[in-house]
Amino acid sequence: MTHYKNILVKRDQLLGPNLPTFYDQPVHLVKGKDVWVWDIDGKKYLDCYNNVPHVGHCHPKVVEAIYKQSSTLNTHTRYIHEGILTYIEKLTQTFNFDLTTAIMTCTGSEANDIALRIAQTITNAKGIISTNHTYHGNTALVSQLSDTNPSSSFSLNSFKRVFAPDSYRLNGSKNLEEYSRNFAQDIEQKINEFKKENIGFAGIILCPFFANEGFPNLPNGWLEPAQKIIKKHGGIIIADEVQPGFGRLGSSMWSHDIIGIQPDIVTIGKPMANGHPVGALITNYNFMSEFRKKYRYFNTFGGNPVSCAASLSVLEIIKEENLLSNAEKVGDYAQKKLKELAKKYEFIGDVRGSGLFFGIELVSDKNAKTPASELTSKIVNQMKDEGILLSKLGINYNTLKIRPPMTFTKANVDYLIEKLDKVLDKTQLND
Amino acid sequence: MTHYKNILVKRDQLLGPNLPTFYDQPVHLVKGKDVWVWDIDGKKYLDCYNNVPHVGHCHPKVVEAIYKQSSTLNTHTRYIHEGILTYIEKLTQTFNFDLTTAIMTCTGSEANDIALRIAQTITNAKGIISTNHTYHGNTALVSQLSDTNPSSSFSLNSFKRVFAPDSYRLNGSKNLEEYSRNFAQDIEQKINEFKKENIGFAGIILCPFFANEGFPNLPNGWLEPAQKIIKKHGGIIIADEVQPGFGRLGSSMWSHDIIGIQPDIVTIGKPMANGHPVGALITNYNFMSEFRKKYRYFNTFGGNPVSCAASLSVLEIIKEENLLSNAEKVGDYAQKKLKELAKKYEFIGDVRGSGLFFGIELVSDKNAKTPASELTSKIVNQMKDEGILLSKLGINYNTLKIRPPMTFTKANVDYLIEKLDKVLDKTQLND
Repeated sequence: MTHYKNILVKRDQLLGPNLPTFYDQPVHLVKGKDVWVWDIDGKKYLDCYNNVPHVGHCHPKVVEAIYKQSSTLNTHTRYIHEGILTYIEKLTQTFNFDLTTAIMTCTGSEANDIALRIAQTITNAKGIISTNHTYHGNTALVSQLSDTNPSSSFSLNSFKRVFAPDSYRLNGSKNLEEYSRNFAQDIEQKINEFKKENIGFAGIILCPFFANEGFPNLPNGWLEPAQKIIKKHGGIIIADEVQPGFGRLGSSMWSHDIIGIQPDIVTIGKPMANGHPVGALITNYNFMSEFRKKYRYFNTFGGNPVSCAASLSVLEIIKEENLLSNAEKVGDYAQKKLKELAKKYEFIGDVRGSGLFFGIELVSDKNAKTPASELTSKIVNQMKDEGILLSKLGINYNTLKIRPPMTFTKANVDYLIEKLDKVLDKTQLND
Repeated sequence: MTHYKNILVKRDQLLGPNLPTFYDQPVHLVKGKDVWVWDIDGKKYLDCYNNVPHVGHCHPKVVEAIYKQSSTLNTHTRYIHEGILTYIEKLTQTFNFDLTTAIMTCTGSEANDIALRIAQTITNAKGIISTNHTYHGNTALVSQLSDTNPSSSFSLNSFKRVFAPDSYRLNGSKNLEEYSRNFAQDIEQKINEFKKENIGFAGIILCPFFANEGFPNLPNGWLEPAQKIIKKHGGIIIADEVQPGFGRLGSSMWSHDIIGIQPDIVTIGKPMANGHPVGALITNYNFMSEFRKKYRYFNTFGGNPVSCAASLSVLEIIKEENLLSNAEKVGDYAQKKLKELAKKYEFIGDVRGSGLFFGIELVSDKNAKTPASELTSKIVNQMKDEGILLSKLGINYNTLKIRPPMTFTKANVDYLIEKLDKVLDKTQLND
């Protein structure tokens, strides 16, 4: 404990205050391998949280790709190198429609920062819509999109929020169909406000899986009415695939295909190179041309040969190791197991997810669907003590967020469920 | 040539148009080692341009640090890891005053994006001053600082420009002292405008070496009147050390020490980890606290263990290989040699720089100091053909920019000068 106390004091001095760690007692990790991580005391944890090491912690093929290219050459895109072309070609082939041209950045935040500028350039309007429980990154511009993260010192009137979908409660709608129309209506209302205020409507940015909103269970087609409204008003659709992309949801590489929308711009990040700092924006050639004519955008590290080699290795591993079908199979198995637990524990209100992004929503009253936020936090910490890393999210932070590396197995699920059962069994609602 | 044509077509398709390459005939690099790079045809170039591979292309110690940490663990700062603390401690020790706390990012752009928000948070004002020939990065916010890169679709009235110093011409001032006072006066005028417009004055961001402005030759103390004015009006000073930092200028780690100002915030990037995508912002603890209270800033890749290991190795190499004194010694030698050339060629108007960032300004009329911008461009391309990579910059783009890796030797200087002499000898002003 002295070790932790000393290190937290030093952390405060060197990094500043208010820099949160996960868990009441933070974890000091020193080693990772596939789905496992170890702390400084040698304790082993099953990592059910980290999506950045997408193909598993320290995957040897990614490490090798980074090592090899770092030893050979690392410059930038003002020289020609084929790594970026090979990668972008393979990446864009994973899209089902006209997303053929890309900018590589170092973070998803940088990609979203560009995405908003493209939307505004194309439409010659400024108004951007997002949900009221989202997060799209940390630049001054994109931090404006979040209600959850305080916005910046710039007061731009160009941002409005629509409600974050909640498939468990439906916010008073009778059913998912009505809920879908209400979501579209909310969007249209905000568009009309933008127009009245002479700001104009540039577009919408959303995670098609609504990950931060608590990944509601929404069927293919649910966003169809919203998409029609947006297109009717000439808006750009930006799909932020930073969390659900790269096959995490199992049945497809991209969550926009699963919910069934055709974004004009896709942004990616976190899992793209298994932890190497890479992000990207993909759009059609015409939109890219408009942006490139207006902005002299250059990113020193973006698309450097090492980042491209790391990114390419991740794409290859996803294919070679059949990680999409693994995510689907193992994810389905996990949800089946969680549904069994839900029969046993009254405070499990909902089980949902897709592929290797799933969880349970905890409630103190199943009829009233009252969020059990504190309980959820307790369970997250107790699971950590049991050697399982996971977290919570959602509108009320009462949903367990389980989002392990894509190499997660059924045996890992069994281990996770065994520990979860043990923790839930000890848990009293009025703890 | 067919190879280049095909690859440029592919590049346009996949990356979009208007994405510039260096040189009329772009260079396709495939290998780098120390100060040398090789193209796809096996041609070897002396790299006199790239500051990102600060300690030399593919330095084995940096590669090893990246390899070792990538193989061990790569997560983020919501877990505890000591790498970031070790690094920030060593980094902040290089500053002569109260710059003790840091945020690690993935790019210098991200660091500057935060810096502006800190300045605005601390002062509760919005107005930011920069020079009219600068560049501080590519986010929507910081791209507002540049006149040279078209600004974004957001019209923020919070940005004003002062003149970029030009020590060769002095813009009509009698001497450097008067010029220094005029610069301060220009700043005060912009501050007063901000106040009149109810925008308020938040601060100034500048590269203390004025690298993009053409690295004017300004003595220690030159910015003293400006600093007094800024402080009198309660403004924050942000030193963008992305280009001149990490000992490039020879006599000190940081260019703000050389010109003699005490910035409140320092931002760094490019050379920090020899090409691995890392940037950082350093400030005092109080400013960091204010920022961290207002913003829930988190950067997924920022300060990850691999980035910290790479960054730490660069700091160690700078020390172990005495790269500061090498920069000073070799830089002085280079300027001496360039001054000899200046006696021989009428169109060399000025020789200047510091450490391993130096160059010559080319003019068509030495009395009128008429910029020979086209000629400079020709020379850059001819030098490339001779196997020397360098570039041009400055207000009129008529200054050769020579900024090689920090391991550059006197023998490298001799080789560079030999080739430059050869190219200049062939050059006719009316070419």
